[in-house]
Amino acid sequence: MDIVQCPGCGREKEWDAFDPFCPACHEPALFKKPDQKRHFHLSQPLALASYADFLPLSGVDPALSLAEGDTPLLRLTRLSQDLGVTVWAKNESVNPTWSFKDRGTAVAVQKAVAVGLRRIGTVSTGNMAASTAAYGARAGLKTFVLIKEDTGPEKILSAAVHHPVLVAVQGDYGELFRRSYELGRKYGISFMNSVDPLRIEGYKITGFEIFNQLGSRPPDVLLVPVSSGGHFIGLARAFADLQEEGLSSHMPLLVGVQAAGCAPLAKAFAEEKNTFERFPHPTTLAQSISNANPPGGNIVLKLVRELGGTILAVSDEEMLEAQRILAEKEGLFCLPDSAVVLAGLLKLQEMTPLRAVDNAVLVITGSGLKNLHVFDSAPPAVTRIGLDELGDSLAAFLEEP
Amino acid sequence: MDIVQCPGCGREKEWDAFDPFCPACHEPALFKKPDQKRHFHLSQPLALASYADFLPLSGVDPALSLAEGDTPLLRLTRLSQDLGVTVWAKNESVNPTWSFKDRGTAVAVQKAVAVGLRRIGTVSTGNMAASTAAYGARAGLKTFVLIKEDTGPEKILSAAVHHPVLVAVQGDYGELFRRSYELGRKYGISFMNSVDPLRIEGYKITGFEIFNQLGSRPPDVLLVPVSSGGHFIGLARAFADLQEEGLSSHMPLLVGVQAAGCAPLAKAFAEEKNTFERFPHPTTLAQSISNANPPGGNIVLKLVRELGGTILAVSDEEMLEAQRILAEKEGLFCLPDSAVVLAGLLKLQEMTPLRAVDNAVLVITGSGLKNLHVFDSAPPAVTRIGLDELGDSLAAFLEEP
Repeated sequence: MDIVQCPGCGREKEWDAFDPFCPACHEPALFKKPDQKRHFHLSQPLALASYADFLPLSGVDPALSLAEGDTPLLRLTRLSQDLGVTVWAKNESVNPTWSFKDRGTAVAVQKAVAVGLRRIGTVSTGNMAASTAAYGARAGLKTFVLIKEDTGPEKILSAAVHHPVLVAVQGDYGELFRRSYELGRKYGISFMNSVDPLRIEGYKITGFEIFNQLGSRPPDVLLVPVSSGGHFIGLARAFADLQEEGLSSHMPLLVGVQAAGCAPLAKAFAEEKNTFERFPHPTTLAQSISNANPPGGNIVLKLVRELGGTILAVSDEEMLEAQRILAEKEGLFCLPDSAVVLAGLLKLQEMTPLRAVDNAVLVITGSGLKNLHVFDSAPPAVTRIGLDELGDSLAAFLEEP
Repeated sequence: MDIVQCPGCGREKEWDAFDPFCPACHEPALFKKPDQKRHFHLSQPLALASYADFLPLSGVDPALSLAEGDTPLLRLTRLSQDLGVTVWAKNESVNPTWSFKDRGTAVAVQKAVAVGLRRIGTVSTGNMAASTAAYGARAGLKTFVLIKEDTGPEKILSAAVHHPVLVAVQGDYGELFRRSYELGRKYGISFMNSVDPLRIEGYKITGFEIFNQLGSRPPDVLLVPVSSGGHFIGLARAFADLQEEGLSSHMPLLVGVQAAGCAPLAKAFAEEKNTFERFPHPTTLAQSISNANPPGGNIVLKLVRELGGTILAVSDEEMLEAQRILAEKEGLFCLPDSAVVLAGLLKLQEMTPLRAVDNAVLVITGSGLKNLHVFDSAPPAVTRIGLDELGDSLAAFLEEP
């Protein structure tokens, strides 16, 4: 029997595929640590199997996996020189649907099939819709994807190709989130939304991989974008798990980064509050991290307080500049929503400078291909010439720095 | 000293960063096999280092790599049942710039930096432009990307983000290809185009990985899209290398797949010719495999004859249907240009059926995110409702098969 526990009030309940929340305080409940000692099994070909001891699964079926995870940790040599700290990128944009969401979906789908569910669903504005649709297709499950009425055509397409039931719903997003669980139970659809405890277990693996890729030690600083809070909670729990198992002696400084245009948690943290307030008029181009009322928000605040860390907010201009730097200096093309972590590191360096030997890991959550519209207002410079002008044109460019 | 040899006439010459062709017959020359015995070094973190014995590099600098390769080989369980053959997908869409091109660029950039070059370039219509721009940025090299005048804005963007010198050239593409080498030598720009021998060495690694992922044996059938020919030549050479080293006893059946709307090699193969003719009026939506005059074409024909295999052509309708099947049955969203391999397998099964125990590997070359315009004429079905209609709407969908 799987037991989940509320990280808020400590109450326990049996895991319920149709209701991940604490019945008392309504925070997302998380899987309890098992009694037995946990180990890595690094010779396994799938990441899920390598870290199976740390997951609430009794087995891993490769036919349900798209080989998510096992992503590179790249040392950013040029950026490290510029910033005076050793910077690494954990590149989650090379997951099967090109975002970190696949790690969570993979665990949730393994569990759904293991307990005999035949219908899954998600409420999403983008990356999670594509990921859930892809894994649902692979598993042959009937998959329900509920999106906001104003979701862009590219985001719709990247889910629609997998042919889920795709419903665009007019109305309040928070209300849609709540209704999905109610209807999910009624119709036998397991809604694996952003703070699903199985998703959070999947995100832990990213932390374990970073630990192993750094040579069995945690980074000094870990920076991750924060929206609903699920990803942050998973990463924080990974390093807490490592401490509990005696594998690691300390925690990284956990830095959550939000868009200033939708920063309910950065605001609450700055005001030293234990609970956040719904952010009034979200305005940011970083749509995938624009959750005004994050369901895991209070748990994120609690973890930051207890485990050590901070929550920063960066402007749209700062995240676009960070996106540009990652692409031009290190060859990494990510979403502005992902580049917030570099903008956050630049901000952190101004506040409390890190040392050159310190390891700062940027978690790069998704591919820049997922939102090319951010360049609509500033299309790239292209020189247009005839073939007979090519020699002169190249010669002219040689002179430029 | 690195020696390359013409696979056409056998002539040898010293490797030249500015001219990869045989001076006698003008076919692309390829690196000669070294004298010493070659081994795998599979405990290395980077794919380039794991297979370094098989590459013309004296070392691998991780600061120039984006951790390309080491991609999953996914067993396609549901598709295998449908087709009566064991089907696998080698998913190259999870490379750093989301196409197989990164494997070639990675090797070419390592070599460029090792020999002291400071300027690189490419002539490309899409994936190779983005890949070369990304690796050039990571290495801090001045990078020249020459594109066709009519290249779409998305493709321009995915290269432009890395801030190369980006020149759109009006005129014949074949002539642009030839001129790039002439101007490259003049201005010290190493143009790493489609059939560059270093690229071809990089593509070999895909073959080695497949061999190891299948448990030290080659697949029975290997299907790969064919355009300029570089990717096909690299994969063919990988399995030839494995035979030469005594690691493998036989070759896979090598199946190159072209778009029927631009199939100079499938046509020449069907007519049992040793050399192809320029394809008159290319018309296919698969732009990235639409090379009417492929520079590696005659070598592809020679390898297919000598090593065993075939070259097929599939229609735009067939590749779109194959793209749909991969997305809906297996959760893989690839370009139609990549899905040609499944369309080719379906065709092969009609001609000479494979057995259920046979392993057929589909090389999936690039992410479907790279061309969402293929859906312009048939946008996906989205049900649009208000929140109060959600319950009834979901209930209605439950009834559907």
